[in-house]
Order: sequence, then structure tokens, then C-alpha cells
Amino acid sequence: MLKNILYAQSGGVTPVINATACGVIETARKHRDRIGKVLAGKDGIIGILREELIDTSRESKGDIAALRHTPGGAFGSCRYKLKSIEESQREYARLVDVLRAHNIGYFFYNGGGDSADTAYKVSQISKKLGFPVQCIGVPKTIDNDLPITDTCPGFGSVAKYVAVSIMEASLDVESMASSSTKVFIMEVMGRHAGWIAAAGGLAQRAEGDPPHVILFPEVVFDEAAFLAKVKHAVEHHGYCSVVVSEGVHYPDGRFLAEAGSRDAFGHAQLGGAAPVVAELVRSALGYKYHWAVSDYLQRSARHIASATDVEQAYAVGQAAVKLALQGKNGVMPVIKRVSGDPYRWKIEEASLSRVANREKLMPRNFISKDGFGITSAARKYLEPLIRGESYPPYDKRGLPRYVRLKKNLVKKMLPEFKV
Amino acid sequence: MLKNILYAQSGGVTPVINATACGVIETARKHRDRIGKVLAGKDGIIGILREELIDTSRESKGDIAALRHTPGGAFGSCRYKLKSIEESQREYARLVDVLRAHNIGYFFYNGGGDSADTAYKVSQISKKLGFPVQCIGVPKTIDNDLPITDTCPGFGSVAKYVAVSIMEASLDVESMASSSTKVFIMEVMGRHAGWIAAAGGLAQRAEGDPPHVILFPEVVFDEAAFLAKVKHAVEHHGYCSVVVSEGVHYPDGRFLAEAGSRDAFGHAQLGGAAPVVAELVRSALGYKYHWAVSDYLQRSARHIASATDVEQAYAVGQAAVKLALQGKNGVMPVIKRVSGDPYRWKIEEASLSRVANREKLMPRNFISKDGFGITSAARKYLEPLIRGESYPPYDKRGLPRYVRLKKNLVKKMLPEFKV
Repeated sequence: MLKNILYAQSGGVTPVINATACGVIETARKHRDRIGKVLAGKDGIIGILREELIDTSRESKGDIAALRHTPGGAFGSCRYKLKSIEESQREYARLVDVLRAHNIGYFFYNGGGDSADTAYKVSQISKKLGFPVQCIGVPKTIDNDLPITDTCPGFGSVAKYVAVSIMEASLDVESMASSSTKVFIMEVMGRHAGWIAAAGGLAQRAEGDPPHVILFPEVVFDEAAFLAKVKHAVEHHGYCSVVVSEGVHYPDGRFLAEAGSRDAFGHAQLGGAAPVVAELVRSALGYKYHWAVSDYLQRSARHIASATDVEQAYAVGQAAVKLALQGKNGVMPVIKRVSGDPYRWKIEEASLSRVANREKLMPRNFISKDGFGITSAARKYLEPLIRGESYPPYDKRGLPRYVRLKKNLVKKMLPEFKV
Repeated sequence: MLKNILYAQSGGVTPVINATACGVIETARKHRDRIGKVLAGKDGIIGILREELIDTSRESKGDIAALRHTPGGAFGSCRYKLKSIEESQREYARLVDVLRAHNIGYFFYNGGGDSADTAYKVSQISKKLGFPVQCIGVPKTIDNDLPITDTCPGFGSVAKYVAVSIMEASLDVESMASSSTKVFIMEVMGRHAGWIAAAGGLAQRAEGDPPHVILFPEVVFDEAAFLAKVKHAVEHHGYCSVVVSEGVHYPDGRFLAEAGSRDAFGHAQLGGAAPVVAELVRSALGYKYHWAVSDYLQRSARHIASATDVEQAYAVGQAAVKLALQGKNGVMPVIKRVSGDPYRWKIEEASLSRVANREKLMPRNFISKDGFGITSAARKYLEPLIRGESYPPYDKRGLPRYVRLKKNLVKKMLPEFKV
């Protein structure tokens, strides 16, 4: 009897994680002679432990194809980190029970750093617990912080959203600046690394173009230098456009986003670095401001996805199946940049032991000397990642045709298990 | 000598106000036998009073065509309301001096309610001050609050942005809701009218679809009812997606956005209804939340413009020139809905005296009985306005080709004037 694939989405979703699922399922369907079904964990590993497995063979060809342009996590995801096999014997025993009961030969774990760690542990099941399963990690994270791979599927689309959005909003504020709002601040994700904030810098076509200031988590917030930079931009360009990472912090490590604001009841303030920066600009410089916090909008904006990113997301899904068919275990398909200009890339494999628990920080030479912008090295790296448009199809009512799967669960064979 | 057109952008800009400018300039260029140049006020009426007039004849055909897909206000805008001719004699005298010095026969004022009022006053110049000028108001406002016209250019694109964005972000939150964030709140513009918030309701395809709650400025905020609605959505759908208008207020009239939060220095809180609503959800229901404030992003998102809106924005610009050539004064081209299904529209003219100073509120029958959603009447009205996609062209680097005009000023002929 042919072995089945068990696929799970893990951690924060991206605009293109479903493109990866599409790559997995479509490729597996091309190998019906060697692979059984693709089952998917409902809400990730939690659903697997609960034996809640979605039978993707009951989804139509059209619906699976539509995953390629649908944001969110179509099978559901969770943040749940398995400890080592030694520490979490009960969970691994359950996992093996589920794998055995559903004839799983291949376990695909689609996530970021923590998920690579979990996948690495699962890859040791064969050796340590004697149950044969090939575990393949599949990369995904908007944070772009996985090592070895040139970039992470999900990042390029968020980068494109941020670059396009700050370009557009800057045109807006510029229009009114002579007599109204002079400073616009857009907050983006990235608590530990400034990859997403850096992408805002791609909106600059020439010296003096917006954004005039980028605040990175890698650079300790220097209030005086920041205010001087804003003042300079307003005096020279008439306005100032700012991208601020949610991870920006003071010298003592406190995030600006939790910088002491209190509501009427004395609760700590509600989050958001952008409003804190805005208030600083108002009180120190007196400029009128506007601010935006894009939050999940940036992470789900499939309507402005990068075509490069969508292709890479699909390709890693496809590659995972190929690695499985090659008998591999404990590996992850990664993106290798073959050349920068013209941009060419290919898929290689990396050992999960090398990927797990290592965070790729942004190189210091990607941040300009004054700490408020990106360098040409950063631009060279980032530019290819946002290239190309990959629009979802729209219906007659003007809305994207995002698919909602049927998500039929396979019949449970095991006793209940508390997660 | 042929008379020139003087065109000015006024008030907050939109993703498509430049499409209207494009309609004006391209149409005027087709009538070189009857119309001289199109001059444009730099930063709106303020630039006109300062005699800072941009010579659009020095912009290339390609750059003018690119206005059709470029957001922001290409000539600059301002919020500056002229009082009556009797009250502001000095300013009207200056205006006549500028019109005379630059051989202006037609004055086009492209804006919302306040601008229609100014345009109406300017249309009385011929009669009251004896200088012959035809004044045409040209509609624009994301707020959709001008009377007579079926909709306002700018609104349809913001509506599309909001509907697509909440649809996407809802897919994201739904993916993780079983073990993580359960409530997502997106704040949109609309201080006095809920047109933009209502557009979020278009994301719903079926009963139970997100957004589950819309908070309108028309409906006094009822905390208990709101929390019950959120709880119901989480219990029935696993998560709750909320669109909140910046104009939502308490029974005593206070906006939620200024609801008593203080920063560490005791300053009034930094704005944003979304974080206030989020904190309420957390403290009363204990759900994990995320919130976004789209602010200028929604108002400049030309990358996701409605094709219907772009066409209408262009058409009102085109129509303004035609009305001018017909010798009209004190009128505004407006959009007339000829039929709803199939959607057909045409341009008619309306007297500025009927447009000025009247705000079109959202009909009460557009809001569902419980006050948290839209009705089928609202859906029927709104749907055609977001139809069709009108993408800007992109360059090889993956960014929209937004145009920046040369903005050459014509030579000043008058003494300086303090605005």
C-alpha cells in the first residue's frame, strides 16, 4: 500500500503559504504510482496530535489550483513547539500512533525557524523510535530569518506590499504637506530583524525620495538623531515619510511600542510603535502627522504579491515531494541565488540540523551609516524578490476569488488525546 | 486669444483624483481650437492666490497619460475655504487679478463638499465682480458624501481596498484562531459618515462570513451589544473580524479614538479607534487580538483601484471641459446611475448651488437592524462601485510606474500676495 504524505502549516501564515501547499499537492498527484494521499493537519501540529486530518484528495483540482492565489493558511496553523523526543515522550508516541494509523511515510512541516526545529526532531523518529518516516521541512516566513536559504517564501510579497504602500502614501502626504500633514509614519512587522522595514527602502528611486527615515530593530532608537533627520527631510523636501519596525527599541531594550502610554484605567498602552513615534514628532517638532499600522494587512495582501515569491513558494512545495521520492529525511528545500543580475535562482537541499534554531539577521552593511536607510548592498539583495505581479483572479463583483476548501476530515482510528 | 483653463485640486487627495486631472488635460488638448492652456494651481487655491501656476502644456503626453494611474495629488492640494465674496473682498480681488493676468476663462475646482462651496462662490464672480469666468466644480471625495451625484470619484477605490483587505486579513486570523489571535480589528476613515466602513461589508459572500461586526459613526457605540456580538462570532465561527470607522463615538459624542488614553506624560492618547476597541475586547472577553489602522494607505492604494471608479474619475474631468465649452457656469458634472443590474451610468450636470454645503449621509436602511452590518440595499448600491481592476503599469523592479510631473511654473506677473 502506497504511503501517504502528511502536510502541516505552522506558525504565522503568509500571503503565499498556500502556494506551497498547492505545490505539494499538485506534485504528489502527479506521482500516484508512488504516493498515496496528501493528508493535512487541521490547524497544524495540534490537529495532527488530535488526529484531525484533512483529506486533500476530496478537494477538486480547481480548488487545489486556487490555493496558489489564496492568502491565509487554508488548513489552519498554530504556534506549538515540540520539545525533544526525550522530554516529550507522550507527544511523540502519539505522533507515531497517528502516523502509523494513517499510513504516513512522509511528514512535511511548512514553517519558520521553530518549525524547522520541530521538523528536525521529527526526522529523528525513525532512528530513535523505530517508526520509519521521512521528514521534510518546507520553508516559510515573512520574517526572512531562516539561514542557508537565500530568502523565505512569504517575505517577497510582504516586501512588495510595504514598498508599494509607502510609495503611495508618500505621494499622498507630499500633496498636502505645504499646508497640512507633514509627517507620515507606517509601522511594519519584524520584532527582531529589520528585513521588512528595509523593504520600504525599495520605494526610493532617487536621492531624497521617500521613505526618508527607516527605523530598524537592529539600530537602538536615538531620539535626537531621529528628530534631526525628520526635521531635515521636512525642511528639504517639504515632508517626511517614515517606516518604523514594530521591533524598534530604546537603549535599555524597551520597545517603543510599549513605551509607557497608559489608558484611562492605567492599563499599559495598546501597542503600536507608529503612534509613539508620531507623538514624539508632534511634541518635539510640532508637525502635523498621520500614522498607519498595517499589521495583518501586510501579511495577507495576496492582491499585491510578488510573482517571484509566488513561484518560489510553489517551487519549495514541489521540491519537498521530489526530496521525499528520493528517500530523503531531515532536509529542507532551500532557495539558492545563482546570479543577481539577471536574477536566477534554483532549489537546493539543506540539512534541517543546519537550519533549526538559527536566526538569519540582516547584515550590518545593509543599513546605511546613519542607521536610517538601506545601502546599495541591501537594494541589490532585495530588489529581485519583489519583481513581477501575480494577481489573483477576481469575480464579477470586483473581489478576489479566494478559495475555501471543504476540509473533510479522515475517520479517526485512535482514542482521544489531550493536547 | 484663446482662454485658458485653471484647474485646482482641493482637500484630501484620493487614489484617482489625478485620473480626473488627466481627463481635463487630455480633453482640453483635443480642443486646441477653442481652449488655450490648462494651468494648475500649485497646492490648490493657495498657489493660485500666490500666483504659483503650473504650466501643464510643458508636461509630455506620456506623463499626462500616466496621471490616470498615479495616486496622490500631482499638482498639490490644500484645505482652504474661501468665505463669501462680501466677507473676503481682498482674496476675491486677488483671484480676479490672477485670472485676468493669466487669461483664464474657465476655473475648475476639483474637490469635495467645501470645495463645491468655494466653486459656487467663484461662479458668482462674473456677476458680482464683473470679470467673466466660467466656474465648474469637479467632484472628488473618498467620503462619498456629495449630494446629487450617485457616487464620488475616489470612493469606489477606497471601498475596494477596504473590502479586499478585510477579506484577506480575515483569512489570516481564521487560520490561527483555534489557538491564537481570535479578533482582528481594522480601522477605516469616515469621521461623519460610514460609507467606507460599509464597504467592508462587501467582503461577505455568505451568512457568517467576515467582517462579523462593522462599527459605524451613524450608530452610537453600545459597548455591551458590541461585546456580545464579538463573543457570538468567536463562539460560532471561531474568530471575529471587525471593521471600525474612525468616527465611532459614545452616547455623549466623544469619539472612541480620543477615549481618555494618556501617555506617560499625561498627553491625550495618540488617536486610533482600533486600539481602543481591541483593548475593550481583551479586558472584557480575554481574547487575543490584532489591530490595523490603514489611514493614508487606504486613500492612496492606487494599486487596487476600482476600474469603475477610475473610469468615472476620468469622465468627470472630461465632462468638465465639455461643460466649459458649452458656456456653462456654476455647475458640476455628476454621476447618474441609469440602472443597477446591469450597472450603467452616465454623466449629467448639477447646479453648484444644489451641491454646496449639503452632506449626503448614508441612508438608515443601509445599516442592518442590529446596527453592526449592511443590508441588501447597501450591497446593491455599493457592489458596482468596486467592480473591475485597473492596475497601474509596473517597472522591472516590481514597483508601479507612478509619474512625477515637472511642474514648471508660469512667469509671475503680479506683486506678491500673502495668503
